[in-house]
Amino acid sequence: MSVPAGNLLAGLPSGALPARSLPDEIFTTLAETAASSGTVRIERILSTGQASPDGFWYDQGWDEFVLVVQGAARLQIEGEAERALGPGDWMMIPARRRHRVAWTDPAAPTVWLAVHIGAQKPPQKIGQGETA
Amino acid sequence: MSVPAGNLLAGLPSGALPARSLPDEIFTTLAETAASSGTVRIERILSTGQASPDGFWYDQGWDEFVLVVQGAARLQIEGEAERALGPGDWMMIPARRRHRVAWTDPAAPTVWLAVHIGAQKPPQKIGQGETA
Repeated sequence: MSVPAGNLLAGLPSGALPARSLPDEIFTTLAETAASSGTVRIERILSTGQASPDGFWYDQGWDEFVLVVQGAARLQIEGEAERALGPGDWMMIPARRRHRVAWTDPAAPTVWLAVHIGAQKPPQKIGQGETA
Repeated sequence: MSVPAGNLLAGLPSGALPARSLPDEIFTTLAETAASSGTVRIERILSTGQASPDGFWYDQGWDEFVLVVQGAARLQIEGEAERALGPGDWMMIPARRRHRVAWTDPAAPTVWLAVHIGAQKPPQKIGQGETA
């Protein structure tokens, strides 16, 4: 059996991006492991200027580790100031800790790695190359 | 409660590295979540020219996701040719799939992110800033 592998930076839009060049962020599941206590799901997120709508908060029932691999973003934890994130910056967002993406760079792709720990159901669509 | 956060690229040795400038790779646990089915542990690994000894294979009872954030390495899955890994390259190594680090760049730091899924016991020492 071949080992699943890839590159997070492959297939990015190149050159300067027109504003909001993609209608939505692109979520690609890289790996998913079922466990009795919940699923661990690892995904790449590609942002090109998107942000959470005003007043919108993610409120997840599982822990999420996020890492900015490339690009620039601002993430806000409820009740705190926005945090500027660049390459190498990571956060471990506990379950039920409300948060939102305040900004992502509209001029160049931002690539995130996200690890969802203990999610009971994958909330997002499955990316290419995955078995549904 | 503050949200755990940091930067994977902070505190790296700068400039050209003398050969094997550090005696060992440095493992730093960033986050760890206990679950009944096993622990999910996220760590940064800093390599500066180290490699697995000849004939040594990692043989783990849990799945491991690895990502090269910066630098260059070669990883070998048993029975396969070595794979060259650079920034953005990731692999999902299933439990019991024997593997070794064949090479890491001796001239510059290589930074890995590793996600250990379902480990029953942390096999490595805990890094700075962690509660033992």
